[in-house]
Parts: sequence; C-alpha cells; structure tokens
Amino acid sequence: MFSTIHLQQLTRLVRYYILISTTEAGSGHPTSSLSAVELMVTLIFGGFYRFDLDNPSHPNNDRLIFSKGHASPLFYSLYAAAGKVSQDELMMYRKFGSPLEGHPTTTFRYTEAATGSLGQGLSIGVGMALNAKYLDKLPYRTFVLLGDSEMAEGSQWEAIQLAAYYKLDNLIGILDVNRLGQRGETMYGHRIDEYVRRVSAFGWHTIVIKNGHLIEQVKNAYARALKLKGKPTMVIAKTVKGKGVPFIENKNGWHGKALSREDLEKTLKQLGAVEANLKGQVAKPLDRLPKKVNGSIPEPLNYPKDKPVATRMAYGNALKRLYLKFPDIVALDGEVSNSTFSEIFQAAHPNRFFEMFVAEQNMVGVALGLSRRGKIPFVSTFAAFLTRAFDQIRMSQYSQANIKFAGSHAGVSIGEDGPSQMGLEDLAMFRAITNCVVLYPSDAIATEKIVEQAAGHDGICYIRTTRKETPIIYESKDDFPIGGSKVLKSSQNDYVTVVAAGITTHEALKAYQELKRDHITIRVIDLYSIKPLDTKTLLAAAQQTKNLITVEDHYPEGGLGEAVCTVLAGQSVKINMLAVHQLPRSGKPEELLDYEQISSRAIIEAVKQML
Amino acid sequence: MFSTIHLQQLTRLVRYYILISTTEAGSGHPTSSLSAVELMVTLIFGGFYRFDLDNPSHPNNDRLIFSKGHASPLFYSLYAAAGKVSQDELMMYRKFGSPLEGHPTTTFRYTEAATGSLGQGLSIGVGMALNAKYLDKLPYRTFVLLGDSEMAEGSQWEAIQLAAYYKLDNLIGILDVNRLGQRGETMYGHRIDEYVRRVSAFGWHTIVIKNGHLIEQVKNAYARALKLKGKPTMVIAKTVKGKGVPFIENKNGWHGKALSREDLEKTLKQLGAVEANLKGQVAKPLDRLPKKVNGSIPEPLNYPKDKPVATRMAYGNALKRLYLKFPDIVALDGEVSNSTFSEIFQAAHPNRFFEMFVAEQNMVGVALGLSRRGKIPFVSTFAAFLTRAFDQIRMSQYSQANIKFAGSHAGVSIGEDGPSQMGLEDLAMFRAITNCVVLYPSDAIATEKIVEQAAGHDGICYIRTTRKETPIIYESKDDFPIGGSKVLKSSQNDYVTVVAAGITTHEALKAYQELKRDHITIRVIDLYSIKPLDTKTLLAAAQQTKNLITVEDHYPEGGLGEAVCTVLAGQSVKINMLAVHQLPRSGKPEELLDYEQISSRAIIEAVKQML
Repeated sequence: MFSTIHLQQLTRLVRYYILISTTEAGSGHPTSSLSAVELMVTLIFGGFYRFDLDNPSHPNNDRLIFSKGHASPLFYSLYAAAGKVSQDELMMYRKFGSPLEGHPTTTFRYTEAATGSLGQGLSIGVGMALNAKYLDKLPYRTFVLLGDSEMAEGSQWEAIQLAAYYKLDNLIGILDVNRLGQRGETMYGHRIDEYVRRVSAFGWHTIVIKNGHLIEQVKNAYARALKLKGKPTMVIAKTVKGKGVPFIENKNGWHGKALSREDLEKTLKQLGAVEANLKGQVAKPLDRLPKKVNGSIPEPLNYPKDKPVATRMAYGNALKRLYLKFPDIVALDGEVSNSTFSEIFQAAHPNRFFEMFVAEQNMVGVALGLSRRGKIPFVSTFAAFLTRAFDQIRMSQYSQANIKFAGSHAGVSIGEDGPSQMGLEDLAMFRAITNCVVLYPSDAIATEKIVEQAAGHDGICYIRTTRKETPIIYESKDDFPIGGSKVLKSSQNDYVTVVAAGITTHEALKAYQELKRDHITIRVIDLYSIKPLDTKTLLAAAQQTKNLITVEDHYPEGGLGEAVCTVLAGQSVKINMLAVHQLPRSGKPEELLDYEQISSRAIIEAVKQML
Repeated sequence: MFSTIHLQQLTRLVRYYILISTTEAGSGHPTSSLSAVELMVTLIFGGFYRFDLDNPSHPNNDRLIFSKGHASPLFYSLYAAAGKVSQDELMMYRKFGSPLEGHPTTTFRYTEAATGSLGQGLSIGVGMALNAKYLDKLPYRTFVLLGDSEMAEGSQWEAIQLAAYYKLDNLIGILDVNRLGQRGETMYGHRIDEYVRRVSAFGWHTIVIKNGHLIEQVKNAYARALKLKGKPTMVIAKTVKGKGVPFIENKNGWHGKALSREDLEKTLKQLGAVEANLKGQVAKPLDRLPKKVNGSIPEPLNYPKDKPVATRMAYGNALKRLYLKFPDIVALDGEVSNSTFSEIFQAAHPNRFFEMFVAEQNMVGVALGLSRRGKIPFVSTFAAFLTRAFDQIRMSQYSQANIKFAGSHAGVSIGEDGPSQMGLEDLAMFRAITNCVVLYPSDAIATEKIVEQAAGHDGICYIRTTRKETPIIYESKDDFPIGGSKVLKSSQNDYVTVVAAGITTHEALKAYQELKRDHITIRVIDLYSIKPLDTKTLLAAAQQTKNLITVEDHYPEGGLGEAVCTVLAGQSVKINMLAVHQLPRSGKPEELLDYEQISSRAIIEAVKQML
C-alpha cells in the first residue's frame, strides 16, 4: 500500500469517479474535489490512515473529517476506490434516497459528522482529538481536510487556538490551498506563507507541501506530521483547483459546476485508462479499546423546602451528582462556569471538564466531536451567547448529535446587566431544531430531574436556567418526563388557565394566591417541557377553562406562547400571550418583569380582563 | 489637555466615579474598568481623540467602541470626567430608567453601538473605518477598546483579517491585557507576546505598552499609532485588573463584583482626594463633512410575464436599480455574491460593494458599523449561513440598527445540495428579533418592491429569497407594503384558505388550478410579510372559509404557520400546518417538496382531508 505508482493509479481512478458522478448528478463540486485528490489518496491509501472499513465504529479508527464538505465527490470516491461504494452507488450521487448526499451527512456510514457549512470541521476534530488524548486515551489520530476559503471563518481560529492550548498532537489539519473560493480568489490566493505565518503564530506545527499534486511530497509531509509531538500540525498544501481537467484548472467561474457530458468525454480521454478493479488498501487500526465504566446509583436529592436555589446552581449540582449514573458525561463551558455553575461539576470531576474559553462556536463543534465518539457533552454558557453558535447547533442535527445545551441567565429576570446578557431568543432557536427537546425547569428539584432526563435521552436537548434564586416548589419524588407538564393549581371552577415555565411559574403561583383572596380561581400549569408539548393537558385546560394566558420571559416569537397557540389552533379558547414585548433594559428583576408585563401583577390584570 | 499630571488627576477622578457608581448599583464590573483607566483617559483627554461632545452626530467625530462592554462604569465615568454626565446621573447606573445601563446601549447618547456580547466591537469598528476610508472619505479615526478574554472569539480574527485586507489605517484597537477573565486566567495570561505574534501575523501594526498604567507610555503609544500608515494598528497593553484597589488588584474572584460600602470607604481613602470640579477637555474634530448625494428616480421594472426569474436574482437587480433612489445603500456579501446575486449590484456600483469573505459574524458587525454611520447596508449570504451571525443580529437590535439582511437558498427547494445549505430556521431567527420586519417574496416583481420597502424602512429587515426560478405572477404596478398580503384567489365559495409565501405560493396556485377542475375552490393568500402580519386579511379568510392551511418551506417552529396560528388563536377555524417536518436530504426540488409534504400535491391532499 505504499508505492507511489500504485497511489498514482488510484488518483486517476478517484478523479474518474469524481468526474463521472458529478456529471451524472448534473451538479456538485468537482473542481474543489480535484485539488485534494493526491492529498487524500496518499493519506488514506499511503499507509498513514488506520481504519477498519468493515467496522467504522471501531473506537480506535483514525478519524477523517471533510471540513470542506462540498468536496463530497472526492469523499465518496475514496470509499469507491476502497471497494466500499460501488460505481452504481456513486452514480446515485445527490439523488433522492441515496446516502451520497450533496454534502456529507451521517446517512453515509463513513461520515464522521455532517459538514457543508464551512469552518466547522476542525472544531469537530478537536472534540475527537480531545477524546482520544484525555478521555478514552486511545492512539487514534484525527485528520481534518480544510479548504482555504473557509479559513476566513473565525470558528477556525477558535479551533486552532484551543487545539494548541490542549496540545493536541493527535490532530492533523490538511489545508488544501487551491486559491479560488466560490466567486473568485480567496483573501490570500496562493500565498501559502500567509497561512503558515498565522497558523504558526497560533501555536501549531506547520508543514508546507509546495506542490500538492506530487505524491512524494505529500508522503513526506504526512510522515513528518505523524512524528511531531507537543502541538497539533497543519499540513499546508499548494494545489490547483480543477486539477486533472486542463481546460478548467486554476480558472475562476468553475466552482460548484459539473462538466457537461461532452466535456466529460473529452476529459476522460485525456485522463487515460483507469483500472476500475483497482482497490486501495487501508491500514488497520491498533486493537485498543477504551476502558468501560459502568454507571452507578447517584446520591438522593436534598433541597430543603425553605431555601430558594437558582436553577442554574441546581444544574451544576445535577451534573456533579449524575456523573455516577452517566459516566459518559463531559462538561464544556465558555469561560462562565462560575455563572452557569458548571464549576460545581468541574470541582468534582476535573478530568471530565474542558474550559472552552469565550469561543462558543468551537465549543459546540467540540461537543459534536465528543458526542460522535460516544460521550454525552453538556455545553453551558449564557442562553444569550448560545446564539453565537446557532450554525453549529443547526448543523449538529444532521449528525445525529447527542448534545445537551444549558443556557443560563434566561430572560429579563437577570436584571441589571441589561439586554446584551439576556437570553430572549433561545427558545425560538432551539425549538426550530428538528427533534430538539426543550426543557425549562422552575425549581432546583425540577432541574435535577430534567438534567437526568436530558442525559438519558439520545439526541439534542436544551435546558434553560434562571439566574436568580427561586423557591422549591416540588418534591424529590416528583418526575419530570420529557413531554410532560405539571398542573400546580387546579379546581372545577377555574376561570382561566395560566401556562408558565421557569421564572414565570413563580409569578403565576403568586398571582394564584392573590386572586384566590378575591375568590378567583385559576389553573396554573408549569410547562417545563416546551418541546415536545403536553398537548393533552393543554387541550383539557383550554376546554375546561375557555380562557388561557401564556406567560414567558422570552420574546413573543417562537417561544412558549406560540407553541401553545399552535397546538390549540382552532379551539374555542381565548388566549392572551404575555411575553417580552418591549426592548428590555437594565433594572431590578422585579421591575423588569413588571415593565414587560410578565409579572404576577400583569398576570392578575390579564386574568381580570378575561373575566 | 496634554499634561501628564492633569491626566493623572483625571484617572483618579475616573477611578472614583467607577467605584462609587458600582457600589451604589451593587453590581457591575469595576475591576475590568479599572485596568483600562489610563488607556482611556489618555486617549480621550490626552489630545488624541477628537470629538465634539455637544454634537455626537458630527460626521467627522472620532469613534470609540467599548468592545469590552462590561467596562461600562469606565465608559460612563469618562463622560462624567468630561462634564457630560453628572454625579447624580452616575449614581443611577444600572437603575431602571437610567440611560447608563449595565452594558452600553444606544439609550446613552455617546454609545456608538451596544456591546456586552464579547468579540463584536471590532467588527463594528471595521464598518466605521471602512465608511471613513472608502465611502464618506473623512479623516475620523475609529478606536476600539478590547478585552483579552474576548480575543478568544473567532469573530475578532474575522475582523482583524478583514481590517488588514482593506488596509484600514484609520482603525486602532486598544487591547487591555489584564490577564483575568470571568472565572480565572485567560488562555495567555500576561504573556502579551502571544497577542503581538498573532495580531502581527494577521497583518497589523502592533505597539506594546509594557505598563498600561504609566501615562507616558500610553501617550507615546498613541502618538506612534496615529502616525502609522498602510495597516490597522493594535496597541497591546499589559494592565492590572482592579488597578487602584490594592486588596483586589490582579486577584481572581473579583470579576463582575462591586465593592461593599465598607470596602469602598477604605479604598477611597487610599485613593486620596479627587477634584470633582476637574473637567477633561476633548480635542475637536476636523470640520469636514461627507458629500451628500440626493436620490433620483430608478428605472421602471421590466420582467416579461412568460420568463421565470429566481427571486435571488431579482434581489440583485433590485439593489442595482434602487441605488439611484437610495444612494446610502452599501452591499456586503459573504463570498457567495454569484449565488445571492449581489454581484449584479457589485458590477454596477463597485465602490459600494465590499467583499466580506466567508466570515458572516464580522459581516454583520461591519453592517452595524456602516448603519451607525448613516448607510443602508444590505447583507447577503445563504439564509442558512446567517445563523452564523445570530448573536450579532441579536445585538444589533439594541443599537437601533438599520440593516437589511437577504438570505438566499431558503428551504428544501434548493434541492441537491442537501440540508447543510438549506435555510430552514431563518424565519424563526429573524421573527424573534424585536421589530424586525420579515419579508418573503414569491416572484421577481414582489422582490423588487420588497427590496424597495426594506430600503425605505428604518430598522432591521429580513428578505428571504429562493434559489430556483419562479414564474412572474404580479404586475409592475402592484404594491407590497410591509404588513400586507396578497389574496391571489378568492371567491364566495372558498372551502379552504391556503396561506403560503415564497416558493409555496406557486405550489398553492398549482393546487388551486387542479382543485378547480374538481370544482373545489380555495382561497390563496401570499403572505409575503411574515412580520408584521396582515391580521385583518387572515381573520377574514378564517371566518369566511373556516378551514385554513399554512404551507411553508421552513421547519414548523417559529415560521409562517406558527405566526398565523398565533394571530388566529381562539378563532373557530380548523388549521393544518404544512411545513418541513422530516429531516431533509438531497434530491430534486420537486421530490423534496413532495417528501416534506409542502408541494401542490400535499396541499391538494390536505384540502381534501378538510372537506
């Protein structure tokens, strides 16, 4: 598997596959694929990459992430050259039902993580490399193919700085500098020194390949890269976009375009004969497995009834406590662990905590990498700052991610810090993610139970926590299943149902007490599971009380109120949505709840208006 | 205004203000403010900064952005020291109703842009510097105070690389390296060389201040910085967090904490007497004004009825055409101008177009900077990739931004490229922004009119465009006011109302035709204004037809369907929400519309089910 001639034959075969599959599809990115053929063929079939193709889930397989996901024709063609994708399957590229999608997704069995939004692959690689070095302690290496255009994404530099900080010498970036982006030249064109200078300054080893199409040069680079220690390594290769198709090589205007059938025919003639029976061999992984730790029973809960606790603190307590039951838990935090209280987990299980600094995009990418290696990452920062990583969160749904997000400091109830720190769009953001579970506890006990539910659920979850302390309203024995709700106050004579969650549950309870004095009874529902919704309880309440108020510390759009309106569509129930309608500002939490008309006072007023 | 002794007295006064205002507030970030006192006092009152305090909107004022917005006590104290904020006003810091909010917002008249989410100020500064150098051609300089923690944000490096690319030698960053982040040491602590190496590698001048508390050193640095040409300059200063309060200087655990009244008293004694009557003088700006260009009448529309045009292309046409009417238009694009078709504008008005490369966060920050300098920035990329900048978009609502976002490639109808490229959460994202107008045209004429509406509207707008060509269904004379809708098909006997927008309008029209053959008449509403909604038309349709179907190429949450359900809450109308319910994949647009049950076929089925 080491001969250069053999590898050259394979590059011809891979180019053939790239060209025929994209022309058949009538779209795709052949030119972006062609520039990296030698880089990838040499890596995979040159004896450097170790992977058991018959067992993609082998925990010690090397990992390869195509951060430049648009080079998917190359990606799939590599597995065709390895005999794992047939030519017929290749010809289904981009067609409905084929696992060979336009950009790699996990419907294809060899995809480590879905890519296609640029600048995300390296963070995912950092997560996998962190796992190998610090958690599973396995000798697998992680390789990430990067495009030069995507180096403009700030997330790349977040990943680069963090990889250096954690000394990830098991991580190798391969930068395909083909000069051209989608619409013209990149910021630095073919001046590869610009990349060398930047990446070195950020604390990486760098290795230059002057001609990324000469297999000997590529081999030498990888051989050196695999020996370097102490830091991650970036292999920076000068390449030609469209290499192998002379009439479009290094030409602008050919991004994301397949050859016509005529041009294909002409090009294949120039390419010369390919041996379709040729099969690339891939080195086998070392036969090492991670140590398996079994879960055990966590301590019981112990929150005294009379002592208010912030749900964000209960989050930290829960993580610490539940690690026993879920030993795959890992916590990541964006330099605010003393606010999100993930520091409680860190203090108890320091080896399972990774400081991600103020770089939320990379944090989410790292979490995805950890999740794809079997961990249960809990990612915490202020709810507001999770918006920084919306693209990464969005992309993670296409990778069957198992990530738990925890956003603290939700809503105007944070008070004096003002709007920049208030999570007011987070429910809308996470609700819009397919199958994402959205949970919003009202007290410490609910938080503990909800964190447990989230840890046990396979998929993306969001947990929203509150800055200020809130009273304990539940019992340790209460359960909080995903999709449930708690009817806290209920009678036969309820005039109005108030649907709340988190901080507003307490406002609703206060309103209940005051209204009771006026002999007005209301139903109070704690809708802790914002997605999925407890439709049954909501429908019953709507039918019984005919009047319903939703109240949430969130902007009106995409939050609890709209979710409730949607499931109650067509019901003859009067609904009043209380939410954050005015641009918020600094002030005391109570003042702001009043200002935004989501306080107990506002609820009472709304109830009385409905009578 | 140049004497060092005078400046030293001012630093004492500013420290005094920082300490008394935060202790009075009982919260805030005194220690993060104290580290930058000499840096800011010397800048503002040392003769370097030129600003007419009585005319903050003077177009040639220098600009100062506190990217480390949590240093707001310092920010406000500077204006107190300049005599523009009284001590009484300072003592209202963080209190409800005060313009001196926890993090600067534009409720305070000297705030250039709201900050508080880290790593955003430099991008805003880049926008202002671009404006000075290339658009207004004014000699004002832009200064940005940066924290060391926030250098971990990738967005910083996006801004840094772009500022170098555009050779913004009118931009000066001031990096306050006080070693400590919120929860402990930053990635590089006090090793300022690490910053020098990185920033230099990215193409900036760097100037080191070894002791950021020595006014002479600070003065020399600024004097040098203002002479450097050809590149932006970063002044990198080693400072001490909490400087001036000996018992907390350089100590961890003091982030975001105000002194107790006791500690304050003790500290003020150590600080010594301050002269409250002291008033810092600020140099005046040069008296230059930008050239004013008046708008003129644009060419009329000309879209032949029989030629389908993609709305994304109409967007480019519209921008080009409307520049005559709105000469403040500037276009920014994230390296996909040949897909969003902002390249049409670029070709026509190259001096008004700025390539932002694949760095969406910085692009939005730059747009905010341009908007704050009176421009009308149109920001385009794929709708999916705007999620990358959600935090910047979110923050812009606190800066009275006037930015127009255009997201192309909306929904599954893009086809083969697959889910990574599909905008499916964008409506949820933009709807959640307070007062953001959300528009979604169905044909080229609607697009032109909608772009015109957006350009004329003062505030944040989002325009969603479609990849594939769609037929022309409107007349050049049709109007598309914000908050309106178009009833495309209507009769007295409509059984069902179908509410669509963009691509699904055409599916609804196809369904109408087919159903008509079976003598089933439906009402078809093109809900091109998703926010604000045309409640009146929706209510009337609901009441008249009693059955309503919403159909959208977006995930169900936070989109058109939920918006409609919310305004129709409590109405006795049966609603069926068609939206993207399954994880999408690659395929032909038509196949995917069918797969997701948002095609004409799905609409027909849904209509028949309702009968």
